[in-house]
Amino acid sequence: MDNDATAVAATALYPPERIGAVARAAEAAGLDALVLTPGPDLRYVTGYDAHVSERLTCLVVPARGEAFLLVPRLELAVARTSPAGALGVEIATWEETDDPFAAVAARLGTPGRVAVADQMWAAMAFRLRDALPGAALSAAGEVLRGLRMRKSAAEIEALREAGAAIDRVHRIVPHLLKAGRTEREVGRDIAEAILAEGHVTVDFTIVGSGPNGASPHHELSDRVIGRGEPVVVDIGGTMPSGYRSDSTRVYCVGAPPAEFTDYYVVLRAAQEAAVRTVAPGVLPEAVDAVARDVIASAGYGEFFVHRTGHGIGLETHEHPYIVAGNTEPLTEGAAFSIEPGIYPGPHGARIEDIVVCGPNGPDRMNLTTRDLVIIDA
Amino acid sequence: MDNDATAVAATALYPPERIGAVARAAEAAGLDALVLTPGPDLRYVTGYDAHVSERLTCLVVPARGEAFLLVPRLELAVARTSPAGALGVEIATWEETDDPFAAVAARLGTPGRVAVADQMWAAMAFRLRDALPGAALSAAGEVLRGLRMRKSAAEIEALREAGAAIDRVHRIVPHLLKAGRTEREVGRDIAEAILAEGHVTVDFTIVGSGPNGASPHHELSDRVIGRGEPVVVDIGGTMPSGYRSDSTRVYCVGAPPAEFTDYYVVLRAAQEAAVRTVAPGVLPEAVDAVARDVIASAGYGEFFVHRTGHGIGLETHEHPYIVAGNTEPLTEGAAFSIEPGIYPGPHGARIEDIVVCGPNGPDRMNLTTRDLVIIDA
Repeated sequence: MDNDATAVAATALYPPERIGAVARAAEAAGLDALVLTPGPDLRYVTGYDAHVSERLTCLVVPARGEAFLLVPRLELAVARTSPAGALGVEIATWEETDDPFAAVAARLGTPGRVAVADQMWAAMAFRLRDALPGAALSAAGEVLRGLRMRKSAAEIEALREAGAAIDRVHRIVPHLLKAGRTEREVGRDIAEAILAEGHVTVDFTIVGSGPNGASPHHELSDRVIGRGEPVVVDIGGTMPSGYRSDSTRVYCVGAPPAEFTDYYVVLRAAQEAAVRTVAPGVLPEAVDAVARDVIASAGYGEFFVHRTGHGIGLETHEHPYIVAGNTEPLTEGAAFSIEPGIYPGPHGARIEDIVVCGPNGPDRMNLTTRDLVIIDA
Repeated sequence: MDNDATAVAATALYPPERIGAVARAAEAAGLDALVLTPGPDLRYVTGYDAHVSERLTCLVVPARGEAFLLVPRLELAVARTSPAGALGVEIATWEETDDPFAAVAARLGTPGRVAVADQMWAAMAFRLRDALPGAALSAAGEVLRGLRMRKSAAEIEALREAGAAIDRVHRIVPHLLKAGRTEREVGRDIAEAILAEGHVTVDFTIVGSGPNGASPHHELSDRVIGRGEPVVVDIGGTMPSGYRSDSTRVYCVGAPPAEFTDYYVVLRAAQEAAVRTVAPGVLPEAVDAVARDVIASAGYGEFFVHRTGHGIGLETHEHPYIVAGNTEPLTEGAAFSIEPGIYPGPHGARIEDIVVCGPNGPDRMNLTTRDLVIIDA
């Protein structure tokens, strides 16, 4: 965590009026209060990238009334200097031998409906449930997702900055991938490049060579990369802003097998067609269907084993999900990946860009070539 | 994540018979099943360091009957090659448009009491609750903590290895700390050393110089370290085994202020006295009281604002907590920090070792000097 760095951009990315908008959304949803523990929900509302721990830190946002931040006393100085400290909300503390859940309950009174951060630990949610025996608990994401899905201009710029940073890493990848190196060696160099190009954390480095490219969530292994083997490189990290990057490209040292090229061109067309579909009002399941139809029509449908994409922002995976069954229309400012894949074995491929739903169509955050990148052997 | 590396030590650290012991503990606690999502509980039971994500992965351990692992289809290959894949449990999969919570519920039938991993996301716990309307949900930690607190010989060796690694970093610190450098610069070098000395992740790097040393959870800032300023360095990481390190030492570039030395010697004595108290059957609150009494007797009681320690293992903070009110006697194999602190400002100090409760007394995992380390200015 680096609260100093995030504080710089805090007012644009994390406007102080957001907490009021969140309270109004809670009230509109019939909730009495939100209880937000450290994680993306708390960061979205306050800018505070608080430490996740077994000691309760939470922002309590009543639908009506004043919000307050409850922190362990030994984290008071950290909380005061965080972006949350600049919001003008009361910061209350608890001592090591206090019961902080009882403290929250005492201030809330007898609420009927309380929503907690989606990523609150279940053990904490159960303690809050037990401290508020009359309240029905639910997930705050049901209220916050509507707000978090409409990225502001500042958030879109933060995603563009993240996209440009991971694009720079992808431009370096051809210099790191060589036949004879292991996936792990290449992955370590990529991780260094992710940090060198401006991210504060490396979130994932997938280097799937040959058969490992046919396992979508393979990460790194000691497998030696061979000539003529397609390599799926899916990488991302978190910027100082809190916003994230995620982009997949496919590389090959030397010429790929002909049967690989056959389906790569299909995948390339499917990804392009899906991106072009993006506009306000379009259903996520329709975007998914466009990619899936192109792949199925070419006879590879059974090898596209995952959804087409996921939202991105303060989390690598968030709403909206680009998947069959999601019929909540895309809104302007929605940000998500478009990443169809074909995994027939003994190799596979995936092409992934982050796209923002602009007023008239897609706005791409990733701009490196989507063609197969052939590296001289 | 690096499942390949953890697989090497899997059978010693994560014995295949553990899953049976967990099922028996669940039955003894009157539970029908445990549902363990990725995190320390799942890793403890299976060795599987699974990716935390919005897609449900869980090990279901019925009190009676066969356990099974449910994973998203696209992670099947990863799960099969993980330590969990070697346990002989069934691996079931769900497709992108399935409801995995309904799948778990269908297999569980109509259980009365189900416990979930402490760190399961609340949003997932609520979905499981809604899929199992007749079941009372609770936190699995209530069952697992008894097992996790009694570290095996292999776990103690893993903690010793972690302690030795962070000790090597502390021995490097005097070469990194110089008047005129910022906390952040020193912290970056320490983070590199944490990895170079054998950890796979850097979990935290606290470098609290001068007044920042009086904020126990201060991390890093751009403050320039000055001569004669005590610097609290509290650092830790995770080893390939999954086990963690955590040790705090205090350094000073040049001679410290006399009033600092006055309370540092008190702190040194308090930490030593608390460590010597450790033995099976001793109450955690008694260990806390020993440290607190030494500090209070010297007149610094108001400046010791946190508990004396926390358990450590697959988490940096876990049971047992060395705190007033914890009357569950220490057992052989319990592993925890002893880390009293005194924070009067404009500086502060903390001394922290990891200690294992041996059959006859304390077994220290950290062996560097606990004296104030004075660095030539």
